[in-house]
Amino acid sequence: MDGIAVRSEDTWGASEQKPVTLHDFARLNTGNVIPAGYDAVIMIEDVRMTGEAAVIRKAVSSWQHVRPAGEDIAESEMIVPSGHRIRPHDIGALAAYGFVDVPVLTVSIGIIPTGTELVPAGIRPLPGQVVESNTVMAKAWLTSLGATCRSYPPTPDEPAQIRAAIRNAAAENDIVIVSAGSSAGTRDFTAQVIAEIGEVLVHGIGIKPGKPAIIGRVESVLVIGMPGYPLSALTVLREVIVPLLSRFGLPVPDPVILSAELTATLYSDVGTCEFVLLSIGNIRDRWVAVPLSRGSGVQMSGVRANAFLRIPDELEGYEAGQTVPVELLVPRSHAASALLVTGSHDPSLDHLAELVGAGGVFLHSSHVGSMGGVLALKRRSCHAAPMHLLSPEDGEYNLPFLVKYLPGEEVTLVCIAEREQGIVSRDHLSLPELPGHSFANRQKGSGTRLLLDYRLRELGIDPASIPGYDRELTTHIGVALAVKAGEADAGMCVYSAAQALGLPFVPVGKERYEIAFRTADGDDQRMQALETAIVSSEFREVLSHLGGYDTRETGVRRQVP
Amino acid sequence: MDGIAVRSEDTWGASEQKPVTLHDFARLNTGNVIPAGYDAVIMIEDVRMTGEAAVIRKAVSSWQHVRPAGEDIAESEMIVPSGHRIRPHDIGALAAYGFVDVPVLTVSIGIIPTGTELVPAGIRPLPGQVVESNTVMAKAWLTSLGATCRSYPPTPDEPAQIRAAIRNAAAENDIVIVSAGSSAGTRDFTAQVIAEIGEVLVHGIGIKPGKPAIIGRVESVLVIGMPGYPLSALTVLREVIVPLLSRFGLPVPDPVILSAELTATLYSDVGTCEFVLLSIGNIRDRWVAVPLSRGSGVQMSGVRANAFLRIPDELEGYEAGQTVPVELLVPRSHAASALLVTGSHDPSLDHLAELVGAGGVFLHSSHVGSMGGVLALKRRSCHAAPMHLLSPEDGEYNLPFLVKYLPGEEVTLVCIAEREQGIVSRDHLSLPELPGHSFANRQKGSGTRLLLDYRLRELGIDPASIPGYDRELTTHIGVALAVKAGEADAGMCVYSAAQALGLPFVPVGKERYEIAFRTADGDDQRMQALETAIVSSEFREVLSHLGGYDTRETGVRRQVP
Repeated sequence: MDGIAVRSEDTWGASEQKPVTLHDFARLNTGNVIPAGYDAVIMIEDVRMTGEAAVIRKAVSSWQHVRPAGEDIAESEMIVPSGHRIRPHDIGALAAYGFVDVPVLTVSIGIIPTGTELVPAGIRPLPGQVVESNTVMAKAWLTSLGATCRSYPPTPDEPAQIRAAIRNAAAENDIVIVSAGSSAGTRDFTAQVIAEIGEVLVHGIGIKPGKPAIIGRVESVLVIGMPGYPLSALTVLREVIVPLLSRFGLPVPDPVILSAELTATLYSDVGTCEFVLLSIGNIRDRWVAVPLSRGSGVQMSGVRANAFLRIPDELEGYEAGQTVPVELLVPRSHAASALLVTGSHDPSLDHLAELVGAGGVFLHSSHVGSMGGVLALKRRSCHAAPMHLLSPEDGEYNLPFLVKYLPGEEVTLVCIAEREQGIVSRDHLSLPELPGHSFANRQKGSGTRLLLDYRLRELGIDPASIPGYDRELTTHIGVALAVKAGEADAGMCVYSAAQALGLPFVPVGKERYEIAFRTADGDDQRMQALETAIVSSEFREVLSHLGGYDTRETGVRRQVP
Repeated sequence: MDGIAVRSEDTWGASEQKPVTLHDFARLNTGNVIPAGYDAVIMIEDVRMTGEAAVIRKAVSSWQHVRPAGEDIAESEMIVPSGHRIRPHDIGALAAYGFVDVPVLTVSIGIIPTGTELVPAGIRPLPGQVVESNTVMAKAWLTSLGATCRSYPPTPDEPAQIRAAIRNAAAENDIVIVSAGSSAGTRDFTAQVIAEIGEVLVHGIGIKPGKPAIIGRVESVLVIGMPGYPLSALTVLREVIVPLLSRFGLPVPDPVILSAELTATLYSDVGTCEFVLLSIGNIRDRWVAVPLSRGSGVQMSGVRANAFLRIPDELEGYEAGQTVPVELLVPRSHAASALLVTGSHDPSLDHLAELVGAGGVFLHSSHVGSMGGVLALKRRSCHAAPMHLLSPEDGEYNLPFLVKYLPGEEVTLVCIAEREQGIVSRDHLSLPELPGHSFANRQKGSGTRLLLDYRLRELGIDPASIPGYDRELTTHIGVALAVKAGEADAGMCVYSAAQALGLPFVPVGKERYEIAFRTADGDDQRMQALETAIVSSEFREVLSHLGGYDTRETGVRRQVP
């Protein structure tokens, strides 16, 4: 306390009626050591100073407002025992008690990339080559959890070289991770090599992705075979390797789990624990979970996911609408700021994500086609649905479909842009020229497909005359890529997708690309951020740069009914 | 898929009855690019190779087992938008797509320690000096959350120098933290300086600890006054500064909250949100929360805590036995491994914590005296209670008290050691010489106090003849420190405490220091780790090094009844 140090016996008898005047005392500030000879402190507010004397009106007991030495910690006492995770305030305490260097536990992990086809990150791979990125992910992850990681140079698919690499890494680390080569393919030697120089404990785990994982040991060193597909590697890291770190004493963050309503039925094999990446979002206090692509080669599913679902091995899956426990991959506040946009794909959605992202809103878009978006909006499994659905009856866009599928509901449409659809090809093909040329189509229910079917009918062209008409891709860019790669002669997409890949484009028509949401959700902060982004000058510049967009209607609202 | 690339039309008509022999195909491994001219893949398991030909028994459709280019991501598509937190698997994806350097958002924080009395960590403070540790804590914490921290040199308590330091830091950072000097004391200039060169938005926050915090700004830079007491600084960091980082876009981990039963009543002022540090542990599937010292100078409470409780400002507190939401300060698995030891204090408990800590058990000891321990055990608010209670009737230790206070319950006692209690002083004082000498006592209910009262009665000494007999400290080391500091001439403690501080010690008697637990809890892994530690040779060495312990009974079990 700020005040005066006194001898308590000098204060005895003091009262309002009978003040005591002290001559022997010492001024103190909070935290000062009490000078020898004094045994109590009186707050400065309770003292009246008169010249060199102090007048008090209340007796004090000994050791009043005096904290004992060693109340915090004393010589010979232990600050933290072994196994204690040193947190920031522990660092503060250690510093306060004189410790500026503390030896700490670490787990040393050696990471060996294998594969003759690997090139390091930053080098553009030639056809048949693969960028070595899984060990980059593993190192970033394990280092962030407190492990000390050593990356070894890539090892070609040669048993002798893999053997030497594992032996060398096992001599220098507590755990060795061998990236790729763990499958049963002709060039997968990891399990064989571990068996030769140590012991394979497990080869193949009932998880998906990640099934080909290996757990083995070379003497006392754990050797883990991490599969090569990025999402398999991610899953094995999370489900096998990170829990191991916990057993080694490193603190692993607790999972954050919440209940969400699944938007699609997921089938799973009994006997395999399957992990499905999700985009989750909160719609009117209800968590909704949209499953992402389950292909283990689709690395972007991991990037796009903000949560995942574990389907236990005893279940055959979960049904759409079921409430399931999902584990977050982002802070909860980020998940709460997710804006679920489900429906028709357009390259400009990425840029809307960029614009709202700067303001703390996370736009998650699922490309299920315009009709898929209408149905998702109807089921309340998205916030907003981008669409371009041409009504064959009246040539009107979008409105008739909302009236039909969400009868009686108040829905708002905001125009993103009017955009040009057309035929993408390597040879300037036009719509009437399609018969006889191989084609990469969009999925049924997409607005592009509807438009194409409509125009072919107008022209009297039989889709059966176009080979590949049944091959369905889900994005404009996907169609343009198939054309560029020579897998198809032509496809239909928006101008910006053709332009992005430098391909010729022959216009078919202009259409109204709008985003629909329930009018009542218009005051949601995330929807407002989206509308602000749509009408911003930055977005107009983006559209003009992408090309093929007419922005005269951009931002125009329409109401249903 | 591992297999062969084919032209699907070549397979048409193939069946079990009518196999087709292919001559034009290409061998492929999973992940390979499909060679030009082929449009489907057949798994190697479904192919019979005959020389240079392949025999198949099933037709395939075009694009079977072929993933489209760009299924993952295509040129011109965005990998992550602004505001996206880059996670380890995002780093993997960025690397795979060719990005090895990415500009990221950061928040730059300048940290200014203030105080004429400060010395840096690593320098032993002279009387009146204080080690500057709060900015060390702040830097460690904020850096771990992704902020970029600049530490500035300590500034003396001079307004002109503080002004210059804040101006300088504000020019270089997004946020400035001024450590200490935020109270209303005579040397607290932070608020005054901020008001002169900027604006004080808030001075004084309804939280405890942390009340004197300041929130201000100098132009567009936030300036936070962080109080000087370590636990106040900790609270302001957690409750004010960390949430700010979240507003700046840095991802802040989600709190992990669970429900626990409070072991003691906590009073709190209405209008102040109070934070109480806790040791929590799980006793037979029930979480129990033991409040730690609430003194804001007791930095070790932070170190010892594995959780904390927030008492909202509208409440007057919580009652013992109430179930309250507590927030974890350690991973949940660490909290689940906490062993709550409540009762009599002994310096050797630190070493038992060290021994069990190496095996992943976290020993949390509360020093409430032997009787406090018996009552905690009775209420099931601890796992084990160390005690040394002398029964005046029969001279027996501990057993009679357990029989009386936990009637009918099966309790096990394990002897830690027999230990020497005695008078600690600077002048070799013995028990009969105490009258007339100032004394530092232990609290009522402690075994040491009981023993002292008992011996004084035997000798016919009136406690009133010993000044300071009412001054109660809670640990052996605390008593020895008070003697060493000259606050008292003598006290009673165990030999090891006197030896640790190099003080003379005159024995009073030997006593049985045992730890009691419910027999049914003896198979709990944590209790087994504790018993293993007690009987270990390492612990015997520790006791021999500490001195004053007779280990002939160490590890001996006794049963009640």
